Amino acid sequence: MRRLNLALGDRSYPILIGGGLLSRADLILPFLPTPRIALVSNAVVAPLYLDLLAGGLEKAGVGVTPIILPDGEAHKTWESLNLIYDALLAARCDRGTTVVALGGGVIGDLAGFAAATYQRGVPFVQIPTTLLSQVDSSVGGKTGINHPRGKNMIGAFWQPKLVLADTDTLRTLPGRELSAGMAEVIKYGLMRDPPFLAWLEANMESLLARDGDLLAHAIERSCANKAEVVAADEFETAAAGGRALLNLGHTFGHAIETGMGYGQWLHGEAVAAGTMMAVELSRRLGWLSGAEVDRVRKLMQRAGLPVRGPDLGVARYLELMSHDKKVIAGNMRLVLLKTLGEAVTCTDAPQEEIVAAIEICCRA
Amino acid sequence: MRRLNLALGDRSYPILIGGGLLSRADLILPFLPTPRIALVSNAVVAPLYLDLLAGGLEKAGVGVTPIILPDGEAHKTWESLNLIYDALLAARCDRGTTVVALGGGVIGDLAGFAAATYQRGVPFVQIPTTLLSQVDSSVGGKTGINHPRGKNMIGAFWQPKLVLADTDTLRTLPGRELSAGMAEVIKYGLMRDPPFLAWLEANMESLLARDGDLLAHAIERSCANKAEVVAADEFETAAAGGRALLNLGHTFGHAIETGMGYGQWLHGEAVAAGTMMAVELSRRLGWLSGAEVDRVRKLMQRAGLPVRGPDLGVARYLELMSHDKKVIAGNMRLVLLKTLGEAVTCTDAPQEEIVAAIEICCRA
Repeated sequence: MRRLNLALGDRSYPILIGGGLLSRADLILPFLPTPRIALVSNAVVAPLYLDLLAGGLEKAGVGVTPIILPDGEAHKTWESLNLIYDALLAARCDRGTTVVALGGGVIGDLAGFAAATYQRGVPFVQIPTTLLSQVDSSVGGKTGINHPRGKNMIGAFWQPKLVLADTDTLRTLPGRELSAGMAEVIKYGLMRDPPFLAWLEANMESLLARDGDLLAHAIERSCANKAEVVAADEFETAAAGGRALLNLGHTFGHAIETGMGYGQWLHGEAVAAGTMMAVELSRRLGWLSGAEVDRVRKLMQRAGLPVRGPDLGVARYLELMSHDKKVIAGNMRLVLLKTLGEAVTCTDAPQEEIVAAIEICCRA
Repeated sequence: MRRLNLALGDRSYPILIGGGLLSRADLILPFLPTPRIALVSNAVVAPLYLDLLAGGLEKAGVGVTPIILPDGEAHKTWESLNLIYDALLAARCDRGTTVVALGGGVIGDLAGFAAATYQRGVPFVQIPTTLLSQVDSSVGGKTGINHPRGKNMIGAFWQPKLVLADTDTLRTLPGRELSAGMAEVIKYGLMRDPPFLAWLEANMESLLARDGDLLAHAIERSCANKAEVVAADEFETAAAGGRALLNLGHTFGHAIETGMGYGQWLHGEAVAAGTMMAVELSRRLGWLSGAEVDRVRKLMQRAGLPVRGPDLGVARYLELMSHDKKVIAGNMRLVLLKTLGEAVTCTDAPQEEIVAAIEICCRA
């Protein structure tokens, strides 16, 4: 088992990574203030893993209230959140009850936001079961729901007490979702870790073949990178750089997700295509060479990811991007690459270059 | 103008109290990170005070997006919250936009929760216009909405950057609401400030006659007491005492509000009757004398407040009280008085004494 620490003062927490962790109630017990949890999962994950997790905890004397939601990004809504609230209230869960998320990013974001807002905040544990959530959304405390006008527009920062990433759960993950998670893994290499980028280029096919040790290494490096960034800028308030850099590819990507309707493109797929737009724009600003753009595109393709966005029309892209949370005082703040392995925020990219980068990356 | 400070480290903020403050844009400007606010108010308060406040700010170059909600506790719901989100998104408010609450406790709680959760948190300013909100809800960072199963069940801690209490707004406050606010003012005397309790006994009629200087003093003493309690226990996590003591009368009171349906009894009215139940229970535990109970009852009556609860039946009271957020691990935690001026938390009051206190305080 690999162990990382996210250093956030009195909100610090461990991230545990490895196989066979779901049945290890002993890893979770020390983090429960009272022997009572609400276990939030979805209709796909629960039949696979809920009994394994809940059984161990119940044997250790923990009362478990299961809350099963429908699966998918389309359900990251107020309605699902309210199902959690209803269940917590019906079971008379109090401020000592820990909310545990067992599932992918949607479940983690929903359960985390419920934990942040139920009775003004209860303890929270993340047990991510997809590659995407293991390397990204389960770490760092961002929680929230979507709004018809934009993704993740409603939410809170609410750090978990513990993140438990069991690599065994990746065995049942559909290939398309494994690839989508790889988009965020590649992101860490591109934004701040050139040796990891090279390691990914050397190992991509073995990773997609679900080699457990390699996956654990990829998750550990991803979480280690994210933990360093989050520790330095917990609330994304840094004037330049900081946590915002984790959004490489995300402003373009959010436009794709919103424009297509939530759930049509997986988040990681949209990020992959969005990253190619950011990479292309970085080339147009003179920061990357054409060969470097090709290198990124090749790795994305080997990971089974799309390298072009849907043809929404440039005007629609720009409109959707201007709704992004990363817009401050009307300025679109994009994350671009100064070089492979060094991301920067950029608020003054010429409009015509942004347009060109979008166009070239949505051609059929 | 009187000035207090709520000391919460990097979340500290000033509380300004006095007449003529609504037109003083200069007091607000230093707290806005960008010259942009969303001004949340209701259909009763907005016609009276919105132009005065917005006019001054607009003259100073601040862009103002007004958001007017229906009035009343019955509207402290997800639906009203969503009206705020919709308006913020339609106006493309970004993370630099400050949400300003102009109104009573319902507006403050709603706008504060919107500020806590819009794009995972934007700056917030409280401009309370009722006595209740000036002495209680605007200070301390509790925000939230009601759920059909319980009051304030969904919410967050989100401190404002500034609280501005303009005593001029109390001139238009209905007498019933002035009295309701006085229940919380009296609470501070009962829980921790005997000299203030005596001062209230000496000045209650003049306060109800809306003497501006006396009201400012009552607000200042109330906020000073609350600020000390909140500073010592921001997130209500103290094992004993601490912020929970502010809930004197509230566990009984919440049962009244929920049992009658939100909005039938004003919050302060329910707290007044609930306080009498807590006071009666304290007498039964041998902590207060009959004469002291009479003294509290007399002050409540002089303040125009109910001293008996509605006849919901004891079983219903107990059921509603067991849903209270202050219940931890199944234990009902009541706030009682060891003596006049000293509140304590109590988890082991005998059930039959609780029952007797409720019964004696709901007789017709």
